[in-house]
Amino acid sequence: MGILNRPGMLGRVTSVIGKAGGDIGAVDLVEMTGDRVFRDMTIKARDSEHGQRIIDKLRKLPVVKISNISDRTFLMHLGGKIEVRSKVPIRTRDDLSMAYTPGVARVSLAIKEDPQRAFSLTIKQNSVAVVTDGTAVLGLGDIGPLAAMPVMEGKAMLFKELAGVDAFPICLDTKDPDKIVETVKLIAPAFGGVNLEDISAPRCFEIEARLRKELDVPVFHDDQHGTAVVVVAALLNALKIVRKDPRRLKVTVCGVGAAGTAVIKMLMTLGVRQIIGVDEHGTIHRGRTVGMDFMKTWVSEATNPQNVKGKMPEALKDADVFIGLSVPGVLALRDVKRMARDRIVFAMANPVPEIQPEQAERHVRVMATGRSDYPNQINNVLCFPGFFRGLLDIRARLVNDEMKLAAAHAIASCVGKSELGPEYIIPSVFNKQVAPAVAREVARAAHKTGVARRRPRADASIWA
Amino acid sequence: MGILNRPGMLGRVTSVIGKAGGDIGAVDLVEMTGDRVFRDMTIKARDSEHGQRIIDKLRKLPVVKISNISDRTFLMHLGGKIEVRSKVPIRTRDDLSMAYTPGVARVSLAIKEDPQRAFSLTIKQNSVAVVTDGTAVLGLGDIGPLAAMPVMEGKAMLFKELAGVDAFPICLDTKDPDKIVETVKLIAPAFGGVNLEDISAPRCFEIEARLRKELDVPVFHDDQHGTAVVVVAALLNALKIVRKDPRRLKVTVCGVGAAGTAVIKMLMTLGVRQIIGVDEHGTIHRGRTVGMDFMKTWVSEATNPQNVKGKMPEALKDADVFIGLSVPGVLALRDVKRMARDRIVFAMANPVPEIQPEQAERHVRVMATGRSDYPNQINNVLCFPGFFRGLLDIRARLVNDEMKLAAAHAIASCVGKSELGPEYIIPSVFNKQVAPAVAREVARAAHKTGVARRRPRADASIWA
Repeated sequence: MGILNRPGMLGRVTSVIGKAGGDIGAVDLVEMTGDRVFRDMTIKARDSEHGQRIIDKLRKLPVVKISNISDRTFLMHLGGKIEVRSKVPIRTRDDLSMAYTPGVARVSLAIKEDPQRAFSLTIKQNSVAVVTDGTAVLGLGDIGPLAAMPVMEGKAMLFKELAGVDAFPICLDTKDPDKIVETVKLIAPAFGGVNLEDISAPRCFEIEARLRKELDVPVFHDDQHGTAVVVVAALLNALKIVRKDPRRLKVTVCGVGAAGTAVIKMLMTLGVRQIIGVDEHGTIHRGRTVGMDFMKTWVSEATNPQNVKGKMPEALKDADVFIGLSVPGVLALRDVKRMARDRIVFAMANPVPEIQPEQAERHVRVMATGRSDYPNQINNVLCFPGFFRGLLDIRARLVNDEMKLAAAHAIASCVGKSELGPEYIIPSVFNKQVAPAVAREVARAAHKTGVARRRPRADASIWA
Repeated sequence: MGILNRPGMLGRVTSVIGKAGGDIGAVDLVEMTGDRVFRDMTIKARDSEHGQRIIDKLRKLPVVKISNISDRTFLMHLGGKIEVRSKVPIRTRDDLSMAYTPGVARVSLAIKEDPQRAFSLTIKQNSVAVVTDGTAVLGLGDIGPLAAMPVMEGKAMLFKELAGVDAFPICLDTKDPDKIVETVKLIAPAFGGVNLEDISAPRCFEIEARLRKELDVPVFHDDQHGTAVVVVAALLNALKIVRKDPRRLKVTVCGVGAAGTAVIKMLMTLGVRQIIGVDEHGTIHRGRTVGMDFMKTWVSEATNPQNVKGKMPEALKDADVFIGLSVPGVLALRDVKRMARDRIVFAMANPVPEIQPEQAERHVRVMATGRSDYPNQINNVLCFPGFFRGLLDIRARLVNDEMKLAAAHAIASCVGKSELGPEYIIPSVFNKQVAPAVAREVARAAHKTGVARRRPRADASIWA
């Protein structure tokens, strides 16, 4: 912006920004021309409307002329966030004749003779398709495949940065489960694994189940299993604090979509017997007819042994743990108070939790959310990079419960005994121990359960 | 290999290699233990059988113990040749919140409001799907999608190295044109262009035509159009040498598959009126019934005005140009001699040409092949990277004839007037001028023909 070059002018600008609630970051002097100083200012706003309000206030200042406005987040996305690079330089004719024709023909023939060689001679050993149809993206719902791209690219970035996995976004222009399954099967040759992402329930269950059956590489629906692994990791540590046994626990799971269902299944694997699922129609129980689908029918049969009917108050009575994967603000404090002592509340609705930590914290023993600005952030980033690293390293054929449980224990173990406390049950997403620990334990579990296709170290010599 | 540590032993080893026709590259001393010297030797062999013969000879030497054999080409391919990387670092929570949640949600919503924004805010502006079904890979034929991977990865490398394009291999596990078309349509959101590759004729024509109609990003079948562009580029320069006019030229095209057909079409665009196609059954003429498909029927109607019947001798009578895109050794010298004076012969069968340059060169004015070890290598690498760079830069909706002709002229122009000669009609694949020149002319042609979706320079500011 150009600001009149007189004493006190910059002060007037910054005070307008401050009053409007903007947070000033860097201020750079770009140019001085005649009576104006041009400055580049970075201002943090809460959201885009807030940003617009600040700009409107600045425009009203007669001493200021705004020349250009950009948004740091949009700037970061310009041109996309990932790129495909060559791992070997092609500088000479010799390089070219090995990487491409005619040399590459021998490599292709070697794979034709034994297709398993694709795992060593192509990117298949390290590549993951991040597959979505854009129907359940973040909290935004069905925004379509193009709008889902920035999220999938973000995912691919994290795969590489945290675990060295080469992931590529496959954003499908269809919502038809048959077509999604067919397409993923047809493009599978280039990939060593499939990460399903942001596909709405209950379609995601069918799609995952069919792909698991038909592909010979692991398929992992992150919204289900990634979430379940991290929730269980946090729960394992929370239970150490309250000294409760999973087998004697009563857990209420609010939100029975992809994530909620996967959490319920994993809690059962963990030995939890008293689980009640709740959605907008109340508890999931046998005999319920409203808002059911095949997966909720399964939940109604597998959980809620006392067949509790009703809404949140009934569901939460004497519960030890509340796990929220639903929508903002649905958990009332009076219902929290109906829970058993040493309450554990995971309120993971995004971006606003089922109950605000400020409101709940005095009444619960351990509180976690999906947010980075409160303690105990439950974030899938803790799971998927290391999980796929392990799957690829051991060349796993599929994903099983043993691996998920192993991953949860690995994540939990990254919080040391002496560090563990009500405000620190889950490691930071920047904890560099997490991905390698998860990878190691997932690979070990794959080996133990007989679904690994290689030993931990493979021989590099192919031609002998 | 471990060699007995006595004088003259290394000499015995190298002389065995030399006698067997091996070419010794680097020799490194790795270790000395007791009575043996361990050396790492790089030996160039003609092919894998030759390599094996050299090794067999070495194994018979009592003074040598081979500890490990590896193949440089295979070593180069280990783990694949490309990787997916993040373009922006994720070091802090602030980075994470912009690249991924919650910041990315605003970017996704912006694309939902206006899908065209995907071209600036995602990789779509620079990404190309390299799509194959593995049915016509190099000279290897139908080797399947997994075995095609090394070739597609090589292509992706060249896209990036030569033109900064982010290409990713999509190797399809089907040969059904309907399924191929459907799959490419469904994965199209992530891509700004589609490069079809190594799909056998005549399926490739139908697949390309349908995708062109149904996608709003350009589709380019490299085996057809890439080849045609480079052949025409070479021909343009060859014609300068023999001073002949395309409109009065007689051209025989041998091999009427994907590449041959595209060359024929492009010659017609160039104004050539006398074209005869020849395949294993003889000339393509009206009334022919054997070995026809819909595309050959089209060729029979559009070319061969005198409806010449017969085999190569008849097809080549008084021809100015022979363009071979067929199989090794089909062009006899006696047939070359039937051609008009100042003969131009492009014998591009791979890896062995239709006629060996040594045999033909005394009888032709200009000779070109597909090989790097003779002058005038006609190689698609000269076209596709720059071609897609231009398409993406200008955000072209489709590929048209004007762009292909512009690309051919651009390639031809990279051989300077003073450099041009019978042994230098086409620039080297390492000529750094080529890709930018092709990109510039393709973009210009797109703009002129009204199929560009952006002006040469776009405004970086999105949010204002």
